[in-house]
Amino acid sequence: MELAAAVCQAGGLGCLAAAYNSVETVSEHIRKLRTMTDQPFAVNVFAPGSNQPLSGDVAAQLEFLGGIYRELGVDPPTLPERASDPFEQYLDLLVSERVPIVSFTFGILPPEAIKRLHGHDAYLIGTATSVEEAKLLEDGGIDAVIAQGAEAGGHRGTFAHSDPTLVGTIALVPQIHEAVRIPVIASGGIMDGRGVVAALALGASAVQMGTAFLTTKESGAPAGYKAAVLQASENSTALTRAFSGRWARGIRNRFMREAEHSSAAPLSFPWQNALTTGMRKRAAQLGNPDFLSLWAGQGTTMARDISAADLVRRLEDEIRQAAQSVADLS
Amino acid sequence: MELAAAVCQAGGLGCLAAAYNSVETVSEHIRKLRTMTDQPFAVNVFAPGSNQPLSGDVAAQLEFLGGIYRELGVDPPTLPERASDPFEQYLDLLVSERVPIVSFTFGILPPEAIKRLHGHDAYLIGTATSVEEAKLLEDGGIDAVIAQGAEAGGHRGTFAHSDPTLVGTIALVPQIHEAVRIPVIASGGIMDGRGVVAALALGASAVQMGTAFLTTKESGAPAGYKAAVLQASENSTALTRAFSGRWARGIRNRFMREAEHSSAAPLSFPWQNALTTGMRKRAAQLGNPDFLSLWAGQGTTMARDISAADLVRRLEDEIRQAAQSVADLS
Repeated sequence: MELAAAVCQAGGLGCLAAAYNSVETVSEHIRKLRTMTDQPFAVNVFAPGSNQPLSGDVAAQLEFLGGIYRELGVDPPTLPERASDPFEQYLDLLVSERVPIVSFTFGILPPEAIKRLHGHDAYLIGTATSVEEAKLLEDGGIDAVIAQGAEAGGHRGTFAHSDPTLVGTIALVPQIHEAVRIPVIASGGIMDGRGVVAALALGASAVQMGTAFLTTKESGAPAGYKAAVLQASENSTALTRAFSGRWARGIRNRFMREAEHSSAAPLSFPWQNALTTGMRKRAAQLGNPDFLSLWAGQGTTMARDISAADLVRRLEDEIRQAAQSVADLS
Repeated sequence: MELAAAVCQAGGLGCLAAAYNSVETVSEHIRKLRTMTDQPFAVNVFAPGSNQPLSGDVAAQLEFLGGIYRELGVDPPTLPERASDPFEQYLDLLVSERVPIVSFTFGILPPEAIKRLHGHDAYLIGTATSVEEAKLLEDGGIDAVIAQGAEAGGHRGTFAHSDPTLVGTIALVPQIHEAVRIPVIASGGIMDGRGVVAALALGASAVQMGTAFLTTKESGAPAGYKAAVLQASENSTALTRAFSGRWARGIRNRFMREAEHSSAAPLSFPWQNALTTGMRKRAAQLGNPDFLSLWAGQGTTMARDISAADLVRRLEDEIRQAAQSVADLS
């Protein structure tokens, strides 16, 4: 929330994450954010229906994770009886708080939700990993689309394909831009002003930067997570289902390696996530990045240890420089 | 060779492929090209040592491929007794023909070869899929480096890592640009003027475009291959070892799918390549794209069915437009 506020104050669009937080916590974050900035901000939610039916070998996964929980000195996890989908509660909050910008991933919002949010002129931003998904979002009445390139850190937003779509940003953005009339927001591997200018040249109207802000002073990421990103080579990340059950890109750490070599396939989402929550919480307490989800994109060597305001200022300078470097071509 | 000549005549740098061709054929291509253009051109070779020791289950692979050869009505393949490395013969030719620009992949040229080629002022271009590989090429005395993003079609050039490196172009180019002083040539997913301007904004000095020229009139690709690229969605490609034994990106066709579902792991390079040569040749004769290697990058929906000269002219217009679209930022 400190990060979202700093970004809003610096002239960017700060974003709060709803997922994995209770509605009460998100509500509190929104209220606090509003005391820190009067600029527009976004809240990001998982689309309803993001939960998958339980699949995978529960006993094998519990045994695999059991050894890790023992090593971390905490009680092993148990599988929850059911997975709740908090979307409707989040929606009530977004509407009652008249949140100005709502972004989402893992699917499309139902017509009723779009109608309610548009009722207070909320601007809706969906996430696409392919041309097909971008068209579905546009056809569904969404206002703008994030083109999530394969370079992006964190969860793949893929929802219309059985496997995660992994088209790189430089190929995905122009193809989505050709296919839809709504604004395209480029994401994936954009870490500095060169990346911003590249994205705009490709047809994007804006960019979404995650990893670049993850290492800023105001970011709430655990210190061990920030350090891992700041030290990583550009080739340190991989895709894994081991943390949440959904594919996501992060720095390949001990947990990801052990999960790859384990015969226990991860459970589906959010079941796997429920089983690893205690592990990640304990690892954060211990300052141990071996068992944290170190979500990061492929631009890691460009990550900076500065304040969000300084980062935005540097981006502005770099954007001017990069634009000048191609000015002779026009 | 017609394509290389047309590109050179249009103001680009046309490139001849040495790999899989006999030295006599390459020699003939160079001589013919020189009758068609007096512009500089490049010849691309595999670095020496690209051949891997034989690995994989030969019997299982022969059985898997045997069914396909029968379906195609040709005799099944046999494993060659040894794999030759034609690099030294190619090198003699490149030197005797004083080829002005030599590009290569799968490794680095030995100091002796660099010395011989630099002896006639050849300009040497290596291929890197990571910052580490780019530094190795620079330290080895190579003149420029191709930053091969994950979007690129065809073989991954990875040589310093055990698995193929798959960093997207928008993330790879600026990180390599920061790490080396030699010029960076961006490749992977660049299909039009927007991509060119994006690459230059990221720090590239030039771009390499493969898929974009593959569908031009002058390209020697089989008609079924061109048609498959022109019809493909941006999400149609995948990586496979099934054609050559090395990882490469192509449009996922019946052969790739069957190889994925087969329990017969591909042999190493070039052994797998030797076993599939007859299949690909026969498929080309039959106009059957199911068993061709349909190498293509992730920008397929931007591929055009025009002449190479027209493509270069359009690129020039698009580059101006894309540069103008970001001119206000400078």
